[in-house]
Amino acid sequence: MGAACGPEMIVDPDAVRAAVLAARDQGRRVGFVPTMGALHAGHVSLVDRAAAECDDVVVSIFVNPTQFAPQEDFTRYPRTPDADRTALAGCRVRWLFAPRADDIYPPGWCTRISMDGPASRFEGEHRPGHFSGVATVVCRLFMAVPADRAYFGAKDWQQTLVVRRMIRDLGVPIGIVVCPTVREPDGLAMSSRNVYLAPADRRRATALWEALGIAARSWDAGHVPGAIERSMRGHLESRGIAVDYAAIVDAESLGPVEPAAPAVALVAGRVGGTRLIDNLQLPARSMRNE
Amino acid sequence: MGAACGPEMIVDPDAVRAAVLAARDQGRRVGFVPTMGALHAGHVSLVDRAAAECDDVVVSIFVNPTQFAPQEDFTRYPRTPDADRTALAGCRVRWLFAPRADDIYPPGWCTRISMDGPASRFEGEHRPGHFSGVATVVCRLFMAVPADRAYFGAKDWQQTLVVRRMIRDLGVPIGIVVCPTVREPDGLAMSSRNVYLAPADRRRATALWEALGIAARSWDAGHVPGAIERSMRGHLESRGIAVDYAAIVDAESLGPVEPAAPAVALVAGRVGGTRLIDNLQLPARSMRNE
Repeated sequence: MGAACGPEMIVDPDAVRAAVLAARDQGRRVGFVPTMGALHAGHVSLVDRAAAECDDVVVSIFVNPTQFAPQEDFTRYPRTPDADRTALAGCRVRWLFAPRADDIYPPGWCTRISMDGPASRFEGEHRPGHFSGVATVVCRLFMAVPADRAYFGAKDWQQTLVVRRMIRDLGVPIGIVVCPTVREPDGLAMSSRNVYLAPADRRRATALWEALGIAARSWDAGHVPGAIERSMRGHLESRGIAVDYAAIVDAESLGPVEPAAPAVALVAGRVGGTRLIDNLQLPARSMRNE
Repeated sequence: MGAACGPEMIVDPDAVRAAVLAARDQGRRVGFVPTMGALHAGHVSLVDRAAAECDDVVVSIFVNPTQFAPQEDFTRYPRTPDADRTALAGCRVRWLFAPRADDIYPPGWCTRISMDGPASRFEGEHRPGHFSGVATVVCRLFMAVPADRAYFGAKDWQQTLVVRRMIRDLGVPIGIVVCPTVREPDGLAMSSRNVYLAPADRRRATALWEALGIAARSWDAGHVPGAIERSMRGHLESRGIAVDYAAIVDAESLGPVEPAAPAVALVAGRVGGTRLIDNLQLPARSMRNE
């Protein structure tokens, strides 16, 4: 529905809410893909997954100011509305929800959602206020788009934990689906920020994926987390990347690795002037080798 | 419905949500009265108003730990489940939602809603964290009880502003109805905490209502806010009340009184060991006398 002539554009949160509720009243399952635009193949994979699982798909595009710290790249974050429409042209999207800042943060806005737990470490340490901004805008978007399911990319693994925790703690009635990271042929995770990379930095940026490969092999070989972390960091630094963190932690709590539980390798660093993150799930293993 | 044999008791948030949504799907308007129990005539007036305006009424009873500061009266706050059922016996309540603490704050809970603006002054200053706890639990309750309207008492005037701000900022789809304060014959505002008052303190507690009467007369006579505040404070102190605040402010922003806008007189103080609050709406007036 709507695919032939492109999605219906909606700016007003009340209007998209009414449209979604009307569809659900008709027994249609609605999927939601919240984005900040600058769409790439990773976003398209989320939309395709939503279209495969749902009757109607809503994509939102909103560059959320509250998840950027003052010195970060909010003003220069890529805004590509025409290319975004092109990227979605082949997708089965019914509604494109593109609110204005005032629709999301009305005059006098002063309410924030904040979190400890999964938001505390890693991105939470290196981007103070980031996850509060994420939790706040995602909650607001979920109120506007009361879908059955929302789709997020595993590339922002910690964000998926923050969103899951927020909806559980506040009881927001929506399901979360986490989809695999989509990568460039050389392994670099798709990111709207990759356009910032100068050619030499673009080549060096593969070091994140290489570090995750090192982690996967070391994990399979039974190495202890601390040793794997040192290997990852060493590789990243050898490629001239300023490492924010390179960690092996429990995949759910982001605390120390638990016996026989899935873990995750997390990396973040600056490649030239561009900050990139990536991660890789590590299957549960016996701890007897440690 | 359900009045003859009393309301249906529901503990599970998902169950009350399903019941409310099923009623609304049938075209029924649902009203919600969130309470901390220890029900008095003020609560009953909210329930009666909800019953007059709605097809079905949900009353929740949950003594919310996160809105009490550590040194406050959470543990001794009155819990009167049998009396609460008696108080509601004459009311048309369909569901009585009484979640356990774990239903509202699941294991690992770490998400809070916080606010500046209307939450900053007065109760926000004297009860740090109080309004964050209120906003958080009210949002959680609204997710569990997706009613058309929720009913709050004007006695907690600042709380009504905080709740309105929260639902506006997060886009929570519910209407807020604020109902007049119900008073004892001598003017004392109904409060679950009035049971704490020893007889002598109970008599002195009327000073709050008397101070509000002074404010109303002075306001009508055109006195400036500062002078009215001094009169209120003087009266409260003359009756041995330890004043937290006695203020004349804009009724919506709680900032300085605006010309030709409604104002509110706010008082709070400790009578013996019991902290009481009260307020009175003051109609918009011309500022030319000031």
